[in-house]
Amino acid sequence: MNAREEIAAPTAARVQGTIWGVGLGPGDPDLMSVRADRLLRRARHVAYFRKAGRSGQARRIVDGLLPEDVTETAMEYPVTTEIPLDDPRYNALLSRFYADCAARLRALSDAGHEVLVLAEGDPFFYGSFMHLYIRLRDAVPMRVVPAITGMAAAWTATGTPISWGDDVMCTLMGTLPEEALVDQMVRADALVIMKIGRNIDKIRRALRRAGRYDAAWLVEYAAMPDQTVQRLSEAEGRITPYFSIILVHGQGRRP
Amino acid sequence: MNAREEIAAPTAARVQGTIWGVGLGPGDPDLMSVRADRLLRRARHVAYFRKAGRSGQARRIVDGLLPEDVTETAMEYPVTTEIPLDDPRYNALLSRFYADCAARLRALSDAGHEVLVLAEGDPFFYGSFMHLYIRLRDAVPMRVVPAITGMAAAWTATGTPISWGDDVMCTLMGTLPEEALVDQMVRADALVIMKIGRNIDKIRRALRRAGRYDAAWLVEYAAMPDQTVQRLSEAEGRITPYFSIILVHGQGRRP
Ligand SMILES: C[S@@+](CC[C@H](N)C(=O)[O-])C[C@H]1O[C@@H](n2cnc3c(N)ncnc32)[C@H](O)[C@@H]1O
Ligand SMILES: C[S@@+](CC[C@H](N)C(=O)[O-])C[C@H]1O[C@@H](n2cnc3c(N)ncnc32)[C@H](O)[C@@H]1O
Repeated sequence: MNAREEIAAPTAARVQGTIWGVGLGPGDPDLMSVRADRLLRRARHVAYFRKAGRSGQARRIVDGLLPEDVTETAMEYPVTTEIPLDDPRYNALLSRFYADCAARLRALSDAGHEVLVLAEGDPFFYGSFMHLYIRLRDAVPMRVVPAITGMAAAWTATGTPISWGDDVMCTLMGTLPEEALVDQMVRADALVIMKIGRNIDKIRRALRRAGRYDAAWLVEYAAMPDQTVQRLSEAEGRITPYFSIILVHGQGRRP
Repeated sequence: MNAREEIAAPTAARVQGTIWGVGLGPGDPDLMSVRADRLLRRARHVAYFRKAGRSGQARRIVDGLLPEDVTETAMEYPVTTEIPLDDPRYNALLSRFYADCAARLRALSDAGHEVLVLAEGDPFFYGSFMHLYIRLRDAVPMRVVPAITGMAAAWTATGTPISWGDDVMCTLMGTLPEEALVDQMVRADALVIMKIGRNIDKIRRALRRAGRYDAAWLVEYAAMPDQTVQRLSEAEGRITPYFSIILVHGQGRRP
């Protein structure tokens, strides 16, 4: 601290605003928590990720809920289609992007504003909010509101419980190598597979090799208006949207 | 259908009431979904499990929320302390208990009543509501409201995200044999261990054998008034309550 800051402190000191990671749940605003709903209805500043040129799913969930005069910070992902995921430049680009977003939020907090960062599903479960959180948590007051995950909406949509007794449940990302997928699929009882996209063929092969293919269900847009539920084996050749989850239900102990 | 029923049908036919599995979330009523909150505030009949002589956690979460004149059906677990868990009589006793409960709910539904069955956390994730659901779903209209799980409240309480990038996350029950626990613990990145109770020493041994003990956190009463968060290694000798979860956070890819 230099002398000037010391002198200025008594009048200029502001209380930093809290930055919240607000979990919105799987999509239906009715499945938001009472706490998230209340925070959003009195929001002054909201921030959210989206792809350039898109409205963004997180922002869409809260449509009609936010006050008219709310300030919005859209954090637009850099276009990365020409860089492969495993290229180090991809990582560097994203890292710079998250640092920039964190700096914008920090400036708002330093100016005394409370900011709600909108997060799909639960913020701490494979969420992009986490990239802001680890960059800001030592500098800014932060709070997190947990939420219903996409997978919970997905298994509810199938009308069948996901796990019983002492079933082992594993969540697997479609981005894993095929061998790693098979290795887990043969050992776990219940399976949840997320981040499907271009990995769908690899996931199908892995499920077949693990003997789990015929028991797999595909849920698209869980708890959203276009929700669909079908056996994976009946969706051959289908291009799945970003919001897709594959499930294999556990069959454990049930008195 | 016999003749008497056939004759009675035109006047006596009633629309069956829906039986709902209403997920209440981890404990704080503020973390209930907007849908659950609305259903409960206009409830006519609620049903819930509890141990004989206890008020029951599910019932406690909705204290002060239910209308004054609501009808309550408490489903009291048979006392089983003298029968070991692996004794076939234990299973038979529980099976009869669930069948009895299902019959009581079915009678309410047949009489046209809508019944909300209160479920801790998410109803389809290792929940006791599932035992009623599979006995009733072909006979009665049923609906399920997903909810925030206990584990989501637990990882939020630690202030650290549970899973990143393509981390594999496994949920393990403390009731599993030690070998099975170790086998999963060495392979998964993020771990969630539930149903701890008398299994705590076995879980500690398994975590040590898998080299995960020092990274494990113990969360008691997540999102409840007595919530505690501590490193498992700092809780040596501690008797954990029913509402306890052990977590090991994933360390995956983060740009
Ligand atoms: C980056 S992860 C975010 C997970 C989120 N934080 C949660 O708690 O569900 C994105 C993946 O979650 C899954 N997902 C999330 N919500 C979904 C929904 N409502 N329907 C289908 N899939 C969903 C999809 O597999 C998607 O690729
Ligand atoms: C029968 S399972 C029910 C799980 C529940 N349906 C859910 O979605 O979280 C009971 C176990 O869940 C865990 N649990 C559930 N809620 C919890 C909470 N609020 N705090 C700590 N542990 C909890 C404990 O490990 C407990 O032994």
